[in-house]
Amino acid sequence: MKRHDDIWIMAAQCPSRLGTVDVVTRFLKERRCYITEQQSFDDRLSGQFFIRTEFRPEEAGFDADAFQTAFAERAAEFEMSSELTPPGRLMPVVIMVSKADHCLNDLLYRYRTGQLPIDIRAIVSNHPDLASLSEWHGIPYHHFPITAETKPEQEAQVWQVIEESGAELVILARYMQVLSSEMCTRLSGRAINIHHSLLPGFKGARPYHQAYEKGVKLVGATAHYINDDLDEGPIITQGVEPVSHADYPEDLVAKGRDIECLTLARAVALHVERRVFLNRNRTVVFQR
Amino acid sequence: MKRHDDIWIMAAQCPSRLGTVDVVTRFLKERRCYITEQQSFDDRLSGQFFIRTEFRPEEAGFDADAFQTAFAERAAEFEMSSELTPPGRLMPVVIMVSKADHCLNDLLYRYRTGQLPIDIRAIVSNHPDLASLSEWHGIPYHHFPITAETKPEQEAQVWQVIEESGAELVILARYMQVLSSEMCTRLSGRAINIHHSLLPGFKGARPYHQAYEKGVKLVGATAHYINDDLDEGPIITQGVEPVSHADYPEDLVAKGRDIECLTLARAVALHVERRVFLNRNRTVVFQR
Amino acid sequence: MKRHDDIWIMAAQCPSRLGTVDVVTRFLKERRCYITEQQSFDDRLSGQFFIRTEFRPEEAGFDADAFQTAFAERAAEFEMSSELTPPGRLMPVVIMVSKADHCLNDLLYRYRTGQLPIDIRAIVSNHPDLASLSEWHGIPYHHFPITAETKPEQEAQVWQVIEESGAELVILARYMQVLSSEMCTRLSGRAINIHHSLLPGFKGARPYHQAYEKGVKLVGATAHYINDDLDEGPIITQGVEPVSHADYPEDLVAKGRDIECLTLARAVALHVERRVFLNRNRTVVFQR
Amino acid sequence: MKRHDDIWIMAAQCPSRLGTVDVVTRFLKERRCYITEQQSFDDRLSGQFFIRTEFRPEEAGFDADAFQTAFAERAAEFEMSSELTPPGRLMPVVIMVSKADHCLNDLLYRYRTGQLPIDIRAIVSNHPDLASLSEWHGIPYHHFPITAETKPEQEAQVWQVIEESGAELVILARYMQVLSSEMCTRLSGRAINIHHSLLPGFKGARPYHQAYEKGVKLVGATAHYINDDLDEGPIITQGVEPVSHADYPEDLVAKGRDIECLTLARAVALHVERRVFLNRNRTVVFQR
Repeated sequence: MKRHDDIWIMAAQCPSRLGTVDVVTRFLKERRCYITEQQSFDDRLSGQFFIRTEFRPEEAGFDADAFQTAFAERAAEFEMSSELTPPGRLMPVVIMVSKADHCLNDLLYRYRTGQLPIDIRAIVSNHPDLASLSEWHGIPYHHFPITAETKPEQEAQVWQVIEESGAELVILARYMQVLSSEMCTRLSGRAINIHHSLLPGFKGARPYHQAYEKGVKLVGATAHYINDDLDEGPIITQGVEPVSHADYPEDLVAKGRDIECLTLARAVALHVERRVFLNRNRTVVFQR
Repeated sequence: MKRHDDIWIMAAQCPSRLGTVDVVTRFLKERRCYITEQQSFDDRLSGQFFIRTEFRPEEAGFDADAFQTAFAERAAEFEMSSELTPPGRLMPVVIMVSKADHCLNDLLYRYRTGQLPIDIRAIVSNHPDLASLSEWHGIPYHHFPITAETKPEQEAQVWQVIEESGAELVILARYMQVLSSEMCTRLSGRAINIHHSLLPGFKGARPYHQAYEKGVKLVGATAHYINDDLDEGPIITQGVEPVSHADYPEDLVAKGRDIECLTLARAVALHVERRVFLNRNRTVVFQR
Repeated sequence: MKRHDDIWIMAAQCPSRLGTVDVVTRFLKERRCYITEQQSFDDRLSGQFFIRTEFRPEEAGFDADAFQTAFAERAAEFEMSSELTPPGRLMPVVIMVSKADHCLNDLLYRYRTGQLPIDIRAIVSNHPDLASLSEWHGIPYHHFPITAETKPEQEAQVWQVIEESGAELVILARYMQVLSSEMCTRLSGRAINIHHSLLPGFKGARPYHQAYEKGVKLVGATAHYINDDLDEGPIITQGVEPVSHADYPEDLVAKGRDIECLTLARAVALHVERRVFLNRNRTVVFQR
Repeated sequence: MKRHDDIWIMAAQCPSRLGTVDVVTRFLKERRCYITEQQSFDDRLSGQFFIRTEFRPEEAGFDADAFQTAFAERAAEFEMSSELTPPGRLMPVVIMVSKADHCLNDLLYRYRTGQLPIDIRAIVSNHPDLASLSEWHGIPYHHFPITAETKPEQEAQVWQVIEESGAELVILARYMQVLSSEMCTRLSGRAINIHHSLLPGFKGARPYHQAYEKGVKLVGATAHYINDDLDEGPIITQGVEPVSHADYPEDLVAKGRDIECLTLARAVALHVERRVFLNRNRTVVFQR
């Protein structure tokens, strides 16, 4: 048996108040659940409390529904929201792409080999280019072209795929269209984008060319939740890579690919392992 | 008020058993202590449990002695050992050096500017070279020369300084003598050494020259607790730096200085913030 | 036109002697070749000189054969060996694998998207597992099983593929068999292996388990030329990744995959761009 | 003898044109100077060529003046500017500070132990705080207070110290005043500033607080030449450090100190070793 095979994850947050940890840990003990790993953090500035617990029921026949109902009751006085993730669960996701395939290819490899606990339900693109790659992995590919005029219709199509697929997470793996404000709101906290620069350094288009112009000695990538404010959503994780004068813009693009793949994959892993919490326009991330 | 000004730290460990987290968190709640940060880990292989808690008493007049006595009673059934560290406490330390001064200089700077919560009670050396640096900082400097014959006497002198100064931690900041087995045993878990290589890569003497011979492309440093087995004590943290063919042994030595300073300072900070736990020949380190 | 489209590369080495740079640069000027990038290094300890030049012929009709013949004559008195690589050249390679596919998958992606200037002529394995992945990329897959008894025959088969394919480089992408001494000699300087530890730290089998046992805080990977002395060949590049107490051996294996892929791909890129020179049991690597 | 004891450095640049390398290397050979290390780069976009050469005269009695005069004549047709640096030369510098002492302390340590080939002629500050630290190192300390009204006079005083000390480099080691446009022009290419963020991310005041607000997961520092455009001068090198949700602004400030020290020291070393060339608003940096 691998070490995670019997481990449940509980993630919760609420306003700061005496007893926030106790309400979780006492409940777990009463239910005879052994805590194997726990992290909590209280943000003094936002007045919010966050807790993530890995635990193993000591007795057979753990009843998740009963557990959640009872815990909700117990935690009500703390206004605590919580999520319970069973061992081995694969989170249903939809991936959105345009033409660049490096991030998609990387995610598909990790998916295929079981390195990322996700279940890719569909791939959506505004271009047809990546259909065959998707098909080789046996994943439905939806090509929804987009123009300025057809944007609302296109987003309605995208939304339908997300809804019908049951996706809990949308991964923008170098999807080069700006989502509408409505779409951002609907996907708040459950859509991760990879921006190919170290935000807030170079927002907008062609960040590697901007980086070249400025002569920076480091380039990077930022994985963040999308929100209304393009390239300004809460940051999950960032990666960085040294560059030199001998790197022309096309070299920076090439060097950036690796760091984009790694940064996006790390962000997705953190999210599906329930390690990321929204804290206003920032995040709390419990690293392993 | 700075954010740490009212934060107590409790660090504890015991054999794995249902209720280990609860016994800590329930007690804190009963005593009206608010947990601002907590990390726990259960090592499935060693069967040991570790927990570190930062908390803030909600009411004035927190009585540490009463707290500890009551907690010891409560936790007795878990065979739990624990330590309580008050806000702003400076841990008393003794630093041991030989001739190289880079690590000492770095520690003294952090000490002088309040970046490391330590109280340097004495500096001990087998050479006279670093006396004036110590004196400028107003710290007693003990020069105890050593030869193969006088080693037992010299170590007795060192031990006396440690004892009389009340040091809880001994920092071997490039002390180039091997401690006797007795001394290692006495200092188990409370003496940190900086080894100038990425252990277990290059043990023993002149690791940079070994690294050059092997043509490695990375050099590093390892901070570890000392034990009987030279250069094999439990590792706390490691640092690394890229090198190239153009780095001769003397260049590796120079590059290594920075990484040694940073790695040792980080290990000391982790130790005095009670983030490090011994787990047989390994460590558990709760990073911030 | 991309920046590399008209750039030739010349790599040369010889014993140290006055005029080693001049013999290269004067010749290039006479032939009206403009040097866009040049790096040279003289190893004082081994008494060897290394030079790598990128240049652009200023006139049309550059005759590579005439250039090489004339240069060989000119450089003869320096006992200089040299190689000339035309713009856009793809180096023919054979990849050897066993069952693990992460490095192969990564190399195939870079190959397919033109990120690595290689031409994969064949994939050889002692297992049948990775045949379909190879076939999807349209690359011949040779399954040559091996036992202790059949090793000489199997290596003869492997050698035949290398010979007939015209491969100039063999990439051991987690090939889990030890090559015979004869094979190592034949492939000296043109076979790159990825070892999944920071050599010389953990040689031999299961290095991640060794790393876990020792409680190291960094794991890494080493790309090196193979030689007779298993896991001791000249190091090309190394990568590293922090780990924690919460990483069990299987987590180290998983974390190691990314660093293995990146380290191997970087070594291959350095090699095919003629940036690596053998310098006895070490290497000279001219980074961009 | 250490390896650098007999090594001269020649750094040169000019517009791109056939023969730029040859004019340097042929001259060196004629003068019987052996090239131990050389790097050149042609920037296709700016049309500028850069070359750095380390060499060792093979015969005694090397006459630097004669060498330079003759080379200037030879290189005139290329409009090449060049500098010759003798072995063991210490570059005269002036350091400017305000109240923060971490960068100054670090530079003084490297200076005192011979790790940086500089000769600190004076320290200038708008505050008296760091006088005793300077005095312990035996370096003249000039306290020139500044107000909006007295800025021109203060800068005149500063300039006088720079002039009279013969400083070739001015290091702004957390000097918290904006230099006037005239001062920036006068110091163009020979004043290095450390900015405590990853430019162009967070310009202006309190970058760590800005970083906290944005919730970034990496902080960094940028060493750059000053120019008229505050925080926008040509970048020499940048350093970076991961941070987490648990780092409050004061923690970011503390973490930033180490990376500021290291980044500034690295930039100064690159400059005094003649590894940095101005290339319009960018730099060419030949790393070792």
